Amino acid sequence: MILTVTLNTALDITYRVPALTPHASHRVTEVTERPGGKGLNVARVLAALGHDVTVTGFAGGDTGATLRAHLAGDAARRTDTRLTDALVPVAGPTRRTVAVVDSASGDTTQLNEPGPTVTADEWTAFLDTYEDLVRDAAAVALCGSLPPGVPVGAYGLLVRAARSARVPVLLDTSGEPLRRGVAARPDIVKPNADELAELTGSHDPAQATRDARRRGAHSVVASLGTEGLLAVTPDGSWQAAPPGPVRGNPTGAGDSAVAGLLSGLVEELPWPGRLSRAVALSAATVAAPVAGEFDPPTYEDLLTRIAVT
Amino acid sequence: MILTVTLNTALDITYRVPALTPHASHRVTEVTERPGGKGLNVARVLAALGHDVTVTGFAGGDTGATLRAHLAGDAARRTDTRLTDALVPVAGPTRRTVAVVDSASGDTTQLNEPGPTVTADEWTAFLDTYEDLVRDAAAVALCGSLPPGVPVGAYGLLVRAARSARVPVLLDTSGEPLRRGVAARPDIVKPNADELAELTGSHDPAQATRDARRRGAHSVVASLGTEGLLAVTPDGSWQAAPPGPVRGNPTGAGDSAVAGLLSGLVEELPWPGRLSRAVALSAATVAAPVAGEFDPPTYEDLLTRIAVT
Repeated sequence: MILTVTLNTALDITYRVPALTPHASHRVTEVTERPGGKGLNVARVLAALGHDVTVTGFAGGDTGATLRAHLAGDAARRTDTRLTDALVPVAGPTRRTVAVVDSASGDTTQLNEPGPTVTADEWTAFLDTYEDLVRDAAAVALCGSLPPGVPVGAYGLLVRAARSARVPVLLDTSGEPLRRGVAARPDIVKPNADELAELTGSHDPAQATRDARRRGAHSVVASLGTEGLLAVTPDGSWQAAPPGPVRGNPTGAGDSAVAGLLSGLVEELPWPGRLSRAVALSAATVAAPVAGEFDPPTYEDLLTRIAVT
Repeated sequence: MILTVTLNTALDITYRVPALTPHASHRVTEVTERPGGKGLNVARVLAALGHDVTVTGFAGGDTGATLRAHLAGDAARRTDTRLTDALVPVAGPTRRTVAVVDSASGDTTQLNEPGPTVTADEWTAFLDTYEDLVRDAAAVALCGSLPPGVPVGAYGLLVRAARSARVPVLLDTSGEPLRRGVAARPDIVKPNADELAELTGSHDPAQATRDARRRGAHSVVASLGTEGLLAVTPDGSWQAAPPGPVRGNPTGAGDSAVAGLLSGLVEELPWPGRLSRAVALSAATVAAPVAGEFDPPTYEDLLTRIAVT
């Protein structure tokens, strides 16, 4: 199985309104809820690609219970793969995120709660769970921001634990948690252009990618928006781009790329195959009508049309 | 005890953000949650005034569980009065309302979920509970909108059940539920100027109030914003106004007025005393720093300064 870690899980709520007007009252016409946080998005895509996947991180309170009920529903709908909930309980309630979508324009206004503070005992309980799970994993993805209370060097610990268990580990985060995590020598980091510039101080992707490798990452896969992915690895460097611009909602496109990279790694695809899959999944996610889902026919179609150079 | 009915309860969530910008992403700096829906607000003020109060209506799902946990917390903090939760379970989750407050201006953007559909069996279970509770009540308040699934004539049924148990009943709703409820001859209706105009077709408060009585209400207490209350009753007519305009947040001011009227009725105050209390509570709610709470010193101060004519 593939293990995904989401320390800052969220109950993602989407409200559809005719148009958001500040300081007015709105009747919400449609409410949707789903488990959120980058690692849970990655897990959903991995399961759709046919991989058994286990999710861990934290969940608590009534919002955490709702999130876990949605996960159980997602798992029950799958007959081909296993999606296992190994989230660790916390006392505080799991945060909500609210996306307010204007029906007319499709534009989204996002409101993100900070999330509960994780106690030292809860963090220790998570580390025990993680060390057990990582031993059975074919690969690990460490995804997203850190909740209050979790030490800023958390990803460094988790990268080292995976590497000492000889399990490939991908890190997808930003800011100081990325800086500290990279120093622990993860197999892959997947920053976007802004995260890469913040880490290295350089806005030139080629130079910044090389610098990120010097900081400790074995391979760097930078997502450059509509230009696709730039990968610099011990086996060579590639750029993978979709055949043309894709219109839609970019929410979750990065998480789909992570799922493409990890599934390709576990299936022992060479790098160009992994990158094609990641770019096609990412573009198929932008094109999908529901934010964060990918459209399988679009994915299948794009997969043969990614230019890898 | 006083019974308050809230068929469309809500978990009221308040998000504080520096400033709400449509189509941008916002980190919420402060999250507060409390039981919402007009009857629950009325109950909170009645308890603060020293009355035992029982709340009924519907609650369901994880949001309903959160709402009930908050109610239990409110009840546990009171040593002087009893606040009893007699909400009826429903399968669907209780709706949320999200108020997004701009920290700088204090302006609020409101997002209201529609709420779960109540089934015929759930409605029947509620009617049984209500008929049991109303027999022990000194007065009943029927408050707010109807959730999907509840018949539009619901308040007519509830008014008639209270009247046949010889329990005074106050109705505070709008639109067709108000029109149908008024026809069942409630003791008091408390429309605001807009609700009164919608019911009667007249924008002249004096004429509209008389018309509302002809439609069935024994007494009509119209809330006219900063001009206070206009009461037309079998015992006479009065206007009660605060000494001057009060600045602040009008959320919950109408619910505080209902609590003032009902507590005065149960204490057998004459109408001028009830109206003074209702106007003072209402103004003290506008002045309070937390939306929907009232400020006791402001209330005590204003109580002696309400002009009743």
